Amino acid sequence: MRVEGRWRRTIELAPGDASYAEDRRSILVLDQAKLPYEIAWLRLGELGEVARAIRDMHVRGAPLIGATAACGVALALGQRVPLDEACATLAATRPTAINLAWALAEMRAAVARGDDAWAAAAKICDDDVAQCQAIGRHGLPLFRKDRTTRVLTHCNAGWLATVDWGTALAPVYAAHEAGLAVHVWVDETRPRNQGMLTAWELAQHGVPHTVIVDNAGGHLMQHGEVDLCIVGTDRTTRDGDVCNKIGTYLKALAAHDNSIPFYAAVPGSSIDWDVADWRAIPIEERSADEVRVIRGTQIVPDASPVANPAFDVTPRRLVTGLITERGIAAPSELRALYGRT
Amino acid sequence: MRVEGRWRRTIELAPGDASYAEDRRSILVLDQAKLPYEIAWLRLGELGEVARAIRDMHVRGAPLIGATAACGVALALGQRVPLDEACATLAATRPTAINLAWALAEMRAAVARGDDAWAAAAKICDDDVAQCQAIGRHGLPLFRKDRTTRVLTHCNAGWLATVDWGTALAPVYAAHEAGLAVHVWVDETRPRNQGMLTAWELAQHGVPHTVIVDNAGGHLMQHGEVDLCIVGTDRTTRDGDVCNKIGTYLKALAAHDNSIPFYAAVPGSSIDWDVADWRAIPIEERSADEVRVIRGTQIVPDASPVANPAFDVTPRRLVTGLITERGIAAPSELRALYGRT
Repeated sequence: MRVEGRWRRTIELAPGDASYAEDRRSILVLDQAKLPYEIAWLRLGELGEVARAIRDMHVRGAPLIGATAACGVALALGQRVPLDEACATLAATRPTAINLAWALAEMRAAVARGDDAWAAAAKICDDDVAQCQAIGRHGLPLFRKDRTTRVLTHCNAGWLATVDWGTALAPVYAAHEAGLAVHVWVDETRPRNQGMLTAWELAQHGVPHTVIVDNAGGHLMQHGEVDLCIVGTDRTTRDGDVCNKIGTYLKALAAHDNSIPFYAAVPGSSIDWDVADWRAIPIEERSADEVRVIRGTQIVPDASPVANPAFDVTPRRLVTGLITERGIAAPSELRALYGRT
Repeated sequence: MRVEGRWRRTIELAPGDASYAEDRRSILVLDQAKLPYEIAWLRLGELGEVARAIRDMHVRGAPLIGATAACGVALALGQRVPLDEACATLAATRPTAINLAWALAEMRAAVARGDDAWAAAAKICDDDVAQCQAIGRHGLPLFRKDRTTRVLTHCNAGWLATVDWGTALAPVYAAHEAGLAVHVWVDETRPRNQGMLTAWELAQHGVPHTVIVDNAGGHLMQHGEVDLCIVGTDRTTRDGDVCNKIGTYLKALAAHDNSIPFYAAVPGSSIDWDVADWRAIPIEERSADEVRVIRGTQIVPDASPVANPAFDVTPRRLVTGLITERGIAAPSELRALYGRT
């Protein structure tokens, strides 16, 4: 996507450009902890730097976490860090997004096959881009041709959450590129306010949008102001239960209550084929300071205890469909779409 | 309630104490725009000061807005401001809370009867206290005796939203005073973060509580961490539809989806007997700056458009009961409870 007028990926495997020249000593990532207030790129050269960037959310978004971890493995192997150590370090950074485990398993398989690790990581990045483009293509028919489609999204599942294009926002960008009128209601998404990332990248591409607090979406749906909800996912079960950023479930309830279609954009790498009961998905409890302090300003006094669960699960009965790189599936059709039983 | 160890009301009709000595030249209100970071009292002497205090939310909470407006009328009349002018100025401050219109009508009726305006305003304040105490008494049986009752509340409908005791929090305080174990999940309540007021007043009284972002309540309900929801109301229809702070509807949906009882605490002065369709309730659209800036720190860039609806309506089908000063009623029983047809 375009940043400051130039087409870039959120993760670049070579210094300073997107040409994937084989420097193999570092990767460049857009520092999402500073956005939208500052555009800064971080160079990550060592395993510890990559792990820290994921844990402290300089890099975030389930697909991008996976791609970054794959690069982290390639960097570590180049520095003679054992594969097991590299995978263990990266796996411990964040518990909920399944893409992380998926990418590490892919890298292990590639190394076991004797493939070049750097090329394997680059392929994971390229595949992510292709998956997101396919999600955009499959989601495009959900948009109206006769008038503006008003989409509500939660958190950031856009370009910034992936290597390029995004998951939930891929159909939005596809519609925008196709000349259709789109307006996006952007949930602020407390406590980390990833909605600011969504607003920023939509603005960079000229897509009309309005920021709202997380409390407002239900009211807008009651009053006919939302045509369609699309969110991302950090892990979707084989039965189509969608684990995503905390608060997603509340929006799904409101969409259901107002007969508004509710879609999750789900690349195959976000599907957990092993978990049967969504209650078994580990939900990350993050630091109270994320709730207490925003941009250096304390808003919750020290005297008040704080809880900060980072994800929730939207049960499949509230999900209209899953937009995958293979097409749109109802939750009950997901296994068939991927040839799983 | 206790503030800094001393029993006080949020609005006091005489300088410096709660004895209601008849100074009649000013009222003292706790400045809620500064809480919980600073405890400051504002002296309001003129109609314009009272109107500004309500509009800029130095004084907030539906019942307290009504009580403050009543005092504003009394002050204005003492300064020879015509009754119509006083009522028009105060009515224009905030559109959603029906208590404001109710209190102004009460004051008009008192003046028409030839009653002393100051005494009439004092009576509105005293009646509010008695109503809140009765709501606490009627809500008490909703609490468990065998283990901690975990209550979720949204916004602030506590002591600070009333003259004393609160509406939604009155049963919490009643349970706490009765020696029952209570824990309150406090919704942050963006954009104005009135949850900080709730956390502050609960802390002043020693009631255990935990602050959460507005996104978290659904997840907690899914995981059996909430026994009971109680919220306040800015206006409830005669059929029991509850207009309250934006985001209340989302929590009611989650409570319903998880079979958790959802109550609104409704003093009679919050019931709008005239509005038939809840969609006709005017929803205040407040300034974008409330979303953009928090405690002086800008969190939403100027480039992003913002919408800021301040209230939503929870349809009666999602409401288990209304806790009034006359007892608890199902939405369908509200009219009978007040002898209305």
